[in-house]
Amino acid sequence: MELLKRRIREDGTVRGTDVLKVDSFLNHQMDVALFEEIGGEFLRRFDGCGVNKILTIEASGIGIACVTAQFFHCPVVFAKKSQTKNIAGEVYTTKVESFTHGRVYDVIVSKRFLGPEDCVLIIDDFLANGAALEGLIDLVNQAGARLAGAGIVIEKAFQPGGDRLRAKGVRVESLARVKSMSEENGVEFVE
Amino acid sequence: MELLKRRIREDGTVRGTDVLKVDSFLNHQMDVALFEEIGGEFLRRFDGCGVNKILTIEASGIGIACVTAQFFHCPVVFAKKSQTKNIAGEVYTTKVESFTHGRVYDVIVSKRFLGPEDCVLIIDDFLANGAALEGLIDLVNQAGARLAGAGIVIEKAFQPGGDRLRAKGVRVESLARVKSMSEENGVEFVE
Repeated sequence: MELLKRRIREDGTVRGTDVLKVDSFLNHQMDVALFEEIGGEFLRRFDGCGVNKILTIEASGIGIACVTAQFFHCPVVFAKKSQTKNIAGEVYTTKVESFTHGRVYDVIVSKRFLGPEDCVLIIDDFLANGAALEGLIDLVNQAGARLAGAGIVIEKAFQPGGDRLRAKGVRVESLARVKSMSEENGVEFVE
Repeated sequence: MELLKRRIREDGTVRGTDVLKVDSFLNHQMDVALFEEIGGEFLRRFDGCGVNKILTIEASGIGIACVTAQFFHCPVVFAKKSQTKNIAGEVYTTKVESFTHGRVYDVIVSKRFLGPEDCVLIIDDFLANGAALEGLIDLVNQAGARLAGAGIVIEKAFQPGGDRLRAKGVRVESLARVKSMSEENGVEFVE
């Protein structure tokens, strides 16, 4: 998605060879006009797959998921990172290791909102090692739901998550795939 | 907002006299078609106020804030509940006590995304004791930004937050104001 790659080149900041900061438009300040373009692109890629539910994980996936859901005319469910008093009854649970925060989260979804009747599109802002995405796929499998695939805004293609999941047969569609990056040369994308 | 009140009556669940669960459409599963109606209503109430930025707090405010921002044609900034490695540089910080989770959070916003040039509309799903909203107002004040007001989806009007903030001169617009609730009689709204 050229518009997105251009935006990453212009407004993204590289730290070292591993950290890509896009917090001015993607995951702290959020450019909803860009999100509309992203949602439209996800619809083009997953149209006709029967998606009736979008699943994401708090917090930074929620905005993109909600705008994308407007294109699919379906609800969003966001997986929560720890059990709260606000969730009653039974939940599906999985564990996700966050490399950013250096800890393991319990990630939960209420069983009332994911089931065998669902065809799920997972949406998230980043894919790197794939831990969050694998956790969400585990929740979809526990629910007996069908997985249409995963729509990712930025994939760090130099990390193993995306290819490992594709090798398992998961359809992963990433709108910008970063091949490498450095503070000197910026971001290079997979063509 | 009658559509919202009807939805709360139909799909909300009351626990005791204090807990209103609306997780089937507002803050776990999210009905984005309803969010579009909510966003349109916030625009009707705050149109012409010069809003150029929407501020919310993770996680459940983000979806409503993003859909509302489509109506205002402005970006969203969401305040984060703890410092992460993903935020560089200086931040505004405040403390918010969560009664739901029984703890105090540091809540932060990057100084790059809130400043004296901003006219801010705060959006959140719930207003009860007002702790989260007061924290967000503190961040707006630290930034030297102008506060247009707060757009709240559900206010527990039997708790003191809304009236305390209105008494301080904050414009608080709540789309559904709950006067009282019980498991036997359901939800009664302020007319």
